[in-house]
Amino acid sequence: MLHGIFYCIILNKPIGIFDSGVGGLTVASAIKRMLPNESFVYFGDTRHSPYGDKSEETIRQYSQRITKFLLEQDCKAIVIACNTASALAYQVLCDSHPHIPIINVVDPVVNHVGSKINNKVGIIATRATIKSDMYRKKLKRLNPKLHIATAATPLLVGVVEEGFMNTKVSAGAIEAYLGSKKFADVTTMILGCTHFPLLQREIERFFEGRAEVVDSPELVAHYLKMVLQKAGLSSTTSEAKYRFIVSEKTPSFARIAKMFFGEDIKLEEIVLR
Amino acid sequence: MLHGIFYCIILNKPIGIFDSGVGGLTVASAIKRMLPNESFVYFGDTRHSPYGDKSEETIRQYSQRITKFLLEQDCKAIVIACNTASALAYQVLCDSHPHIPIINVVDPVVNHVGSKINNKVGIIATRATIKSDMYRKKLKRLNPKLHIATAATPLLVGVVEEGFMNTKVSAGAIEAYLGSKKFADVTTMILGCTHFPLLQREIERFFEGRAEVVDSPELVAHYLKMVLQKAGLSSTTSEAKYRFIVSEKTPSFARIAKMFFGEDIKLEEIVLR
Repeated sequence: MLHGIFYCIILNKPIGIFDSGVGGLTVASAIKRMLPNESFVYFGDTRHSPYGDKSEETIRQYSQRITKFLLEQDCKAIVIACNTASALAYQVLCDSHPHIPIINVVDPVVNHVGSKINNKVGIIATRATIKSDMYRKKLKRLNPKLHIATAATPLLVGVVEEGFMNTKVSAGAIEAYLGSKKFADVTTMILGCTHFPLLQREIERFFEGRAEVVDSPELVAHYLKMVLQKAGLSSTTSEAKYRFIVSEKTPSFARIAKMFFGEDIKLEEIVLR
Repeated sequence: MLHGIFYCIILNKPIGIFDSGVGGLTVASAIKRMLPNESFVYFGDTRHSPYGDKSEETIRQYSQRITKFLLEQDCKAIVIACNTASALAYQVLCDSHPHIPIINVVDPVVNHVGSKINNKVGIIATRATIKSDMYRKKLKRLNPKLHIATAATPLLVGVVEEGFMNTKVSAGAIEAYLGSKKFADVTTMILGCTHFPLLQREIERFFEGRAEVVDSPELVAHYLKMVLQKAGLSSTTSEAKYRFIVSEKTPSFARIAKMFFGEDIKLEEIVLR
C-alpha cells in the first residue's frame, strides 16, 4: 500500500521544461493540451536570452545549471524546449543524468520527417542551431537520401517577439529568407526555433501548399507522451499544476508570454547561481 | 624634459569605448573620422548582448567591470557608446571614477536638440532606454517646453544586424514604428540606439524632409573632441592605434563589425571575470 502511494507521488511529479526565454512556451502549451494530467515547471532563462548567438560552452553551462535546478524541484523528466540547447547541450545532459528521461525538440521532428522517402527538407533556425548542423546530421543518419537546405533566420525571432505576425514586416522577412532559390523545391519545412510556430500559417501560405510546414510543439508533446508511457511515468492525477519561472523578469517576457502560451500566466523570478 | 615626455605619454593613451556589442562601432567610426590622432580600445560585450532587455542592476555591473578593464588598459577617457548603458550606468561610473573624463551618447544629442525652441522631438530606442526615460528627462530639464514622443523599436536592431537595410523589411518596420500618430508632427527625430545610424537615410526618407534625423555618432565624436581639448588630453601623435575586443567572438560580430565600422577589423576575445 505504502509502496503504491510512493509510486503515485513519483508519477505525479512535474515535468521540467526549459528554454532560453519565452519560445519554449509554445512547447509547454502543446504539452498542456496533449497531456492535460501532467504538471510542469517551466524555466525561461531570460537573463541570458537569446542563446542563439552564444558559444557551445556557454550554452552547455547554462543548460546544466537549469537542469540541476529543475531536478531540485523534483521533476521526473526534462524537456529541452529550446532548439539551440537541444542541438548543443542534449548529449551532455543525458550523460550527466542517465536515469532521468530527457527529451529535446529536435529528435521528434527528425523522426517524423526523416522517415519520408524522396523528401526535400528545408530547415530554418537561429544561427547557433544552423551552425551546429544537428538537424542535418540526424536526418542524414536516419535517411541518407534526403535533400536538405538550411538557413539561419534570426530576425524571425524578433518579428514574433514584437508581435509583427501577419504584417508587411513578417511577410518581407519570410520572403527574404524563404524566397531563396535553395528552398524553391522543398516538400517539408522544419521550423527549427520554438518561436516560429507563431509564423506557421504565414509560412504555409508562402509555400502555397507546396510544402508541409511541420508543427514541432505537437510532435514534441506527442513524443513526451510516448516516453512517459514507456517509462511508466505517466501522471495519475487530474489536478495538473504549472509553475513559470524566469531568471529575470522583463517587461517583454510578461507581455509576450501570453501570446506564446495562449493564456495569462503568473511569473516567478529565480536567479540561478 | 622628462616631465614633457611623461605628459605626452598620457596624452597619447587610448580612449576606451564600450558597447553591449557591435552598435558602438558607429560611434568608434565617427571618432576615428573626426579625431584621427586618437587611439582607442573598443570593448563589445557580445557575451551579454543585447543589454536592451536586461535589468538596471545587471547593466550597471557589466558597465563597471568593462570600465575597470579599460582603465587597466591605460585609457585616458571612457566613451559609453551604448544608449542603454548611457541611460542606466553613466552616473554610477562617474561617481566611481571622478578623475577620468567619461562621456555618454545621450548628453551630446540632448544638448544639440534641447536648445531648439518649439521643437517637437521623437525618440526611438531599445525598451530599456525608453523605459529609463533618460532622453525625455534630460531634454525637459534643458527645455521644459519641448514636446516629446517616444517608442521602443527593438526590431530595428535585428533589421540592421541582418543587413536588411533598404528592403521591404526595414521599410515595413520603420512604417509600423514611425507611422504612429504620435510621431506625425515631430520636427527632430533622435535615433537613441547606436545601431540606428545605419537606417538614418531611410528614416529621413520616411519623414520626407519634415523632420531632422539627428546624427548621434557625429555629435558624440564632436563632444569628445571638446572634452579632450578642455581637459588638455588631446593626442599629440599622428600614429593612432585601434584595438577591438569582444567578450565572445561570435560569427555574427565578425560578419557585421565591418558593416558598422566601415572597414575590416581584427577581433580579440577577452572574457572579463
